[in-house]
Amino acid sequence: MSDLAAALEIVGARWALLIVDQLLEGPQRYGDLQRELGMGTNMLATRLRELEAAGVLRRLPLRHNTRAYALTDRGRALSAAITALRQWGAEKT
Amino acid sequence: MSDLAAALEIVGARWALLIVDQLLEGPQRYGDLQRELGMGTNMLATRLRELEAAGVLRRLPLRHNTRAYALTDRGRALSAAITALRQWGAEKT
Repeated sequence: MSDLAAALEIVGARWALLIVDQLLEGPQRYGDLQRELGMGTNMLATRLRELEAAGVLRRLPLRHNTRAYALTDRGRALSAAITALRQWGAEKT
Repeated sequence: MSDLAAALEIVGARWALLIVDQLLEGPQRYGDLQRELGMGTNMLATRLRELEAAGVLRRLPLRHNTRAYALTDRGRALSAAITALRQWGAEKT
């Protein structure tokens, strides 16, 4: 598999980069992520599980059975790709 | 919609960036794209139609009823994002 295909295998899923982008601002709770992104809870849970398995983010233990998520170094390394895609999206003509 | 979401609306589909990456090397015929990418023909046709509608690529008229595709300026502008994703994919640890 090419390096590009390997990257898209992990972050090519519909919402993955939007989740990573949210978490670039800092760790967030499950409920806050869901509200910010307006995603269905099943799909959010699936994407979070996949991104955790791929080493992009990790679960933080919180009190009161609350879940929160934070990017790993590997996840933060996606910021260059996200910035490039955002700039491309802004140039829509 | 944010600029990032707008970009992913167009190139967030499973194979879209792999197709654009192939075409960064130059215009290609439908059959060659299919062979290079190993995609099903229905999915390739769908992605090409979407990317054409979004102004990312255009169809070239060829003789003998052959179809070929080339990136527009807008499509070529995705190379920065593709490079960033490829580098991220290469750093898999």
